[in-house]
Amino acid sequence: MRFLHTADWHLGRLFHARSLLEDQAHILDQFVELVRTERPDAVLIAGDVYDRAVPPPEAVALLDDVLGRIVIDAGVPVVMIAGNHDSAQRLEFGARLMRAQGLHVAGRTLAEAACVTLHDAHGEVRVYALPYAEPAVVRDAMGTDLPSHEAALRAQLDAIRAVHPPGVRAVVVGHAFVVGGAASESERPLSVGGSGAVAADLFSGFELVALGHLHRPQTLGGGRIHYAGSLLKYSLSECAHDKSVSRVELGADGAVTITAVPLQPLRDVRVVEGELAALLAAGAADPQRDDYIHARLSDTGALLDPMAKLRQVYPNALAIERTVLARSGTAEAGRKLRQLGTGELFASFFREVADAELEPGQREVLDQVLACMAAAERESA
Amino acid sequence: MRFLHTADWHLGRLFHARSLLEDQAHILDQFVELVRTERPDAVLIAGDVYDRAVPPPEAVALLDDVLGRIVIDAGVPVVMIAGNHDSAQRLEFGARLMRAQGLHVAGRTLAEAACVTLHDAHGEVRVYALPYAEPAVVRDAMGTDLPSHEAALRAQLDAIRAVHPPGVRAVVVGHAFVVGGAASESERPLSVGGSGAVAADLFSGFELVALGHLHRPQTLGGGRIHYAGSLLKYSLSECAHDKSVSRVELGADGAVTITAVPLQPLRDVRVVEGELAALLAAGAADPQRDDYIHARLSDTGALLDPMAKLRQVYPNALAIERTVLARSGTAEAGRKLRQLGTGELFASFFREVADAELEPGQREVLDQVLACMAAAERESA
Repeated sequence: MRFLHTADWHLGRLFHARSLLEDQAHILDQFVELVRTERPDAVLIAGDVYDRAVPPPEAVALLDDVLGRIVIDAGVPVVMIAGNHDSAQRLEFGARLMRAQGLHVAGRTLAEAACVTLHDAHGEVRVYALPYAEPAVVRDAMGTDLPSHEAALRAQLDAIRAVHPPGVRAVVVGHAFVVGGAASESERPLSVGGSGAVAADLFSGFELVALGHLHRPQTLGGGRIHYAGSLLKYSLSECAHDKSVSRVELGADGAVTITAVPLQPLRDVRVVEGELAALLAAGAADPQRDDYIHARLSDTGALLDPMAKLRQVYPNALAIERTVLARSGTAEAGRKLRQLGTGELFASFFREVADAELEPGQREVLDQVLACMAAAERESA
Repeated sequence: MRFLHTADWHLGRLFHARSLLEDQAHILDQFVELVRTERPDAVLIAGDVYDRAVPPPEAVALLDDVLGRIVIDAGVPVVMIAGNHDSAQRLEFGARLMRAQGLHVAGRTLAEAACVTLHDAHGEVRVYALPYAEPAVVRDAMGTDLPSHEAALRAQLDAIRAVHPPGVRAVVVGHAFVVGGAASESERPLSVGGSGAVAADLFSGFELVALGHLHRPQTLGGGRIHYAGSLLKYSLSECAHDKSVSRVELGADGAVTITAVPLQPLRDVRVVEGELAALLAAGAADPQRDDYIHARLSDTGALLDPMAKLRQVYPNALAIERTVLARSGTAEAGRKLRQLGTGELFASFFREVADAELEPGQREVLDQVLACMAAAERESA
């Protein structure tokens, strides 16, 4: 049996106040094409479908379009769960009506997990959909006290084991942080205080655990626990990730083989480093000028509106970092700056910006300027 | 052919800051039961399904549940359109996937209106779904300049007439303000400046025009243009309405017979009038104490927290109006009240509240109190 496993679409996400919907639509076009070509037995979407509980209407329309093309046009069933970014109730609208068409959406947490039964030449495969839920929500559903994410997930998995027929291959689609997984900067923590993490051995007995939450594609638990990773690079920390969706082959004996299928984003997320002038000169010949650019500028002097200049070359530049400024950190933060005279204050500022002392000639010019200003101030008073 | 026509559910509506979801769920239970009993050929829901573009998740869950029970459990198809309160894109999520099950949702406005073809013993009936849209939105869809609501709707109806086969009965489900219709206080105007109203003769040639928007059930255009009215009383102005859903029989010859089917709300919306003490005394024996009560108090004197007292008898009292206060209107608003002394100011206030002059004894007490206050003020200064 073959699955295409993907997760963390975060439709409607803003990146430095910029909507990524065009990028998301572009890459989802490729995904739909892949589904049409590969014709897997099912597509598994492991949560964080939207970036927030109330996504913009354009994101709703995009998801509607993509699911229609996969389920109706390509005729491939989809199992989709809510992640910690999704609204369980909103995502689940129409679930009963869409089920018969092959779209299985699990939003709300129930005492008995939703189960989709599939078949291949080797028999039955049961896919259990476990949407993300706070421990308190799982407790309400299961009627047991469950103090942690781990306890909650264990209870849910135990309930599945209790009804799962022996000898049948079992797949879980979930949204969790498994201990040992590598996080990025764009996952929202699952737990405020206390750990949201769960142990990998919780999933023993399941042939495949197709997860969402961590944005880097990765495999744990000896190859059975798999994060497909996010659809796109959603933070600077993901620059070096190879984003992909995952082709998962589940053998007759329950053995799992996972292959990453890279998709081509409309725009990459990249860091460029150097002095502004050098970056502008090099950027003019950059074939990937439309990428989302994070510039680390090493200039020591003042720069007049560097973002405007950068965007003339890189129209989608998102952020600028001054490496020299950043280096000094908060070392001076504790000083009582208000007690310094204007000259000393400026000298301190210069030291912070340029990582160097004012030269005598520079100090002379500064003093003249300050004297002029003081004279002008007296006159106008 | 038989329809059940309803509109203006406004799920998620707040009434004096109170959620009506329990009331809405209660009356929709009766509606679902009616559908199960009557088994109409289709249910028509003519817009303003939700009260706002982003309804609360509980309202989404309620609609999901109700539609599942009608379409899947009762097996009755539904044609549902967006009204001016709904988000076209959000309401339309999953529409392609749900269509095959018999739920036809029209949210966005297209050049060609969605059409659902039904059959009875006398042949075909085509139901055209025309969701509410601003003229600018219709213009974008149709590619023609359409300056008004009337021009926009005319263009949409002309486009339907152009494709509708002759001799086939035609039904329109729409959301509009037809000239001559009686409005309440809870419809949001369709147009800010300019008229949102459309002429009844726009709909010539259609056997049945099942509308939403106006909250009072009413029939125009010689019996063919029908408002089912809102599910519940959503404003004080609707106190005297008989809310209902509509049973519509469409004959072989296209003749239409409409019957109102009243449903029983969990709580009625009522006005009670009189002095507070009398209302409290009478209310104690009121069998409908749980109704939503708007109290018109005729008391002339001061009342200490009348709402708290009223709610001891009528737990769902929503608002209090002081009829004596209201009577004086804004007659005194123009006076330069700041120029008056405290005594005159109080006398003016008393006149406004009590509709009477201070009696000499009252004035004497007032003057004593004011003198005491002035003395205390001098001491503390």
